[in-house]
Amino acid sequence: MAKQKNSKLKIIPLGGMGEIGKNLTVFEYKRDIIIVDCGITFPDETMYGIDIVLPDMTYLINNKDRIRGVVVTHGHEDHIGAIPYLLKEMNVPIYATKLTMGLIENKLTEHGLMRDSVRKVVRPKDRIDLGGFNVEFIRVNHSIADAVAVCVRCDAATVLHTGDFKIDYTPIDEEVIDLPRFAEIGKEGVDLLMADSTNVELPGVTLSEKSVGKRFMELFDGVETRIVVATFASNIHRVQQIVDAAVAHGRKVAVSGRSMINVSKTATELGYLDIPDGTLIDIRDINKYEPHEIVVVATGSQGETMAALSRMAVGEFRQFSITAGDLVIFSASPIPGNEKMVYQVINNLFKLGAEVVYEKLAEVHVSGHARVEELKLIHTLVNAKHFIPVHGEYRMLKHHVDLAQSLGMPEENTLVVNNGTIVELDKNSCRDIGKAPSGIVLVDGSGIGDVGNIVLRDRKHLSEDGIFMVVVTLSKGKTVAGPDVISRGFVYVRESEELINEARNVVKAALIKCEEKKITDWNKIKSELRDALDRFLYEKTKRRPMILPILMEV
Amino acid sequence: MAKQKNSKLKIIPLGGMGEIGKNLTVFEYKRDIIIVDCGITFPDETMYGIDIVLPDMTYLINNKDRIRGVVVTHGHEDHIGAIPYLLKEMNVPIYATKLTMGLIENKLTEHGLMRDSVRKVVRPKDRIDLGGFNVEFIRVNHSIADAVAVCVRCDAATVLHTGDFKIDYTPIDEEVIDLPRFAEIGKEGVDLLMADSTNVELPGVTLSEKSVGKRFMELFDGVETRIVVATFASNIHRVQQIVDAAVAHGRKVAVSGRSMINVSKTATELGYLDIPDGTLIDIRDINKYEPHEIVVVATGSQGETMAALSRMAVGEFRQFSITAGDLVIFSASPIPGNEKMVYQVINNLFKLGAEVVYEKLAEVHVSGHARVEELKLIHTLVNAKHFIPVHGEYRMLKHHVDLAQSLGMPEENTLVVNNGTIVELDKNSCRDIGKAPSGIVLVDGSGIGDVGNIVLRDRKHLSEDGIFMVVVTLSKGKTVAGPDVISRGFVYVRESEELINEARNVVKAALIKCEEKKITDWNKIKSELRDALDRFLYEKTKRRPMILPILMEV
Repeated sequence: MAKQKNSKLKIIPLGGMGEIGKNLTVFEYKRDIIIVDCGITFPDETMYGIDIVLPDMTYLINNKDRIRGVVVTHGHEDHIGAIPYLLKEMNVPIYATKLTMGLIENKLTEHGLMRDSVRKVVRPKDRIDLGGFNVEFIRVNHSIADAVAVCVRCDAATVLHTGDFKIDYTPIDEEVIDLPRFAEIGKEGVDLLMADSTNVELPGVTLSEKSVGKRFMELFDGVETRIVVATFASNIHRVQQIVDAAVAHGRKVAVSGRSMINVSKTATELGYLDIPDGTLIDIRDINKYEPHEIVVVATGSQGETMAALSRMAVGEFRQFSITAGDLVIFSASPIPGNEKMVYQVINNLFKLGAEVVYEKLAEVHVSGHARVEELKLIHTLVNAKHFIPVHGEYRMLKHHVDLAQSLGMPEENTLVVNNGTIVELDKNSCRDIGKAPSGIVLVDGSGIGDVGNIVLRDRKHLSEDGIFMVVVTLSKGKTVAGPDVISRGFVYVRESEELINEARNVVKAALIKCEEKKITDWNKIKSELRDALDRFLYEKTKRRPMILPILMEV
Repeated sequence: MAKQKNSKLKIIPLGGMGEIGKNLTVFEYKRDIIIVDCGITFPDETMYGIDIVLPDMTYLINNKDRIRGVVVTHGHEDHIGAIPYLLKEMNVPIYATKLTMGLIENKLTEHGLMRDSVRKVVRPKDRIDLGGFNVEFIRVNHSIADAVAVCVRCDAATVLHTGDFKIDYTPIDEEVIDLPRFAEIGKEGVDLLMADSTNVELPGVTLSEKSVGKRFMELFDGVETRIVVATFASNIHRVQQIVDAAVAHGRKVAVSGRSMINVSKTATELGYLDIPDGTLIDIRDINKYEPHEIVVVATGSQGETMAALSRMAVGEFRQFSITAGDLVIFSASPIPGNEKMVYQVINNLFKLGAEVVYEKLAEVHVSGHARVEELKLIHTLVNAKHFIPVHGEYRMLKHHVDLAQSLGMPEENTLVVNNGTIVELDKNSCRDIGKAPSGIVLVDGSGIGDVGNIVLRDRKHLSEDGIFMVVVTLSKGKTVAGPDVISRGFVYVRESEELINEARNVVKAALIKCEEKKITDWNKIKSELRDALDRFLYEKTKRRPMILPILMEV
């Protein structure tokens, strides 16, 4: 490889810009590369049948020999989910705090990657050298325990990346965000701040996690029925507060839903979740207890069809049934796009007679992200020379840049970038100098990247009007079997026999026409059949199923 | 038909209960039936390829000789959209206020039903006799002009149905909801109140439409660029206020989007929209004016892919391009389920450099539905003996019943009902006495009801993993052509040649096995092929496409 003449720092976000999801940022200085976070995102409604979405890692694969490690800020899917997929391409060491590493290890175990992977647990205030980089970990608060910001230093520049954060003066684990260290680093001099933009549209400050615990205590008071609380499995502190409220009210706790069980187990083993002896019971034993002796912590706060609470809401949960008077608490906000599903679950619970408490009506959830006033504090403490907003849709990034400017940063020192943008940074400048390969890679089943636009376009077409096939066997240009017509997802065949028969006649007529015109090119014959059927079916139904003519030769 | 012994009033909602959509309520007394509203709803995400959803009208079709008319409260799709489909089944007269009738007539024209339909325009305070019923129309405020509540009287009982409403003391057309008449009717005695539940979860009162006009005036002040305002086409008063603000700022108005053009035209012709001469310009002439001379009123406030604003946001609007500094106002809230699409359009507009004002950040929209304090007023004025909440998802209906009880109504006088519930009412009781046929009818293209669960299930399956077909021509049990394998929406074939070849071999092996086992029943052969392919493809890809074996005989 050519000698690196350029001694500036390059920063290349491969995910997380213009979106909330699949965070992955590349830092590159001379021969060395480090990666901050390596997450996935979930498919949108146009990605038919897709399970998860990865950032395009071509740039990393092309430079794999230069990568010194992956540094992880916290254990959410959009920060750790793509690590197994990265490790399948290259074996690079992973650096993360204890809980984050525990959650990563659960994934590596699933993917059979535990034996060969190199993992190093770090603590806040630790500083590690990775090639020409030094990375410092700084405690922050977030909706998952053990979250950190990172300060990335090299000879060319110092960058502070907040990761996802909020400011909580009374966090459950008493580990307040290390504001003094932010201030010190700010005083030493920061060339670039990269900060979480999720809640930049919201005024004021995000409430302390502790406020939710207080609310649980009030809600549990005097309740004689079963209590079910749904929340994100990864929100260990929320689960802790549910446990605390349960204990204070003499109730046992049962945990339900695969991810809730897995995360709770890891968090308990690592000392992040403290459940007094005798409190935890197996969900299968729930009917051995009276309703007023039980709190169930469940997945399903986003209305996910297969999650525990969603199954309870439709009476399909095996271990017990929600009955009239049961208290159900949604301790989460619907993520945009999930509103309809969440409200459907709430409606179903009301139909079963449950008392349902949800965010629209009560303070049973707080966000994990800083609002405007918290962002102002961090900007002020860090006092960076340049600013790039991260972790936000485009409008949020734009609002965050406006906020930086309102605090006195010159417009030319701020930069809104896209996934793939190559940023070049030194003590004096921060510029967009080009584009690295970037984009998305779709995971469907065990296939990584084998579903692209053509397949998605076909799935969309099939989902809208179904498929209409016509099969003909030819011998020397003459029809010897068929035409058979078969449809799926188009009309209910038994009630549309006449239409199907007419369609067969249309095909026969088209075949005769081809014979008369002496058309022998199969592609032309197929095209004639397709056109004739498309016209006929559209006229009859105003629908355009995918039409697939299949010719066989004997 | 048998003599009607029962002289109680029956009320049968065929839509609008447990949902916001397809409102249709049947009132039945002795031999006579009237219908209040006849709306559609829009498909949810499980209704692949469906255009609109109708209430099941079987009960009406079975009783068509007894129907005396359709009474319509206002011109929104969920109250008028199914009228053409009803009229295709039976010719019954339609009663509606002037603007509502104008919008209905647009639909009847589209469906070729104008000539034969019987339409009568009514005004607030009118009372009409329909068989044994008397129907009185009462002015209400809503997000469309000319909305009314109805008081339905027969010898058995008096029912007040609010339709959709809010209380606006300063409406744009100065037609304040007729609260004195609500009070008078209440004093005369109401046996049953049926009231709008949409905003029952929101405290306080809904602001006056006029507050939005004030905000437009402030936002337009000092702007030198083009202004685009997106709102619902049917919100005539909103459009009027945009026009007023435009005129006050010396700007012309261009209207964009098919529904916006149609509704504005109807509203102007009927005198509901007042655009001063010389103010309206054709959108195609927009480039003849300077940016500061123009306001564009556009569809697309819900992020609908094909609407005018969505096309502007991606630079695909023919008549002009949004450029840096243009002001775009979203004068609407995202309807649940549309959030992601709306924010995508907002993000795209920000990318073009537009200043975007939307509800999260500014008061540019008010709802058309009463909040808690307004509902309390109506309940108090009407002072009904019984109460059935309408126009709401289940949790809203439940909250609305709680509200009635909090005002002193005995629990046993309130009733939450479903679509299809037959309610029997007289001076002394209001009871659920059974169930009429009810449900949904899906409209896809020109087909009404020909897409059912099997077709939807197939479309879902096809959308997730696509289709995999295998075609074989047999002669006396021996393969003479094929097997050919063809897939769509499964994998990108060019990059998966090996998989396709292996699949063909799997089919060949299965065919040989069938021959060896002397299986000649085609259904059994197909089943063997399907099983072999399903196993193979799942093992290779962890996906389960629809597998379709097709056998031909020569």
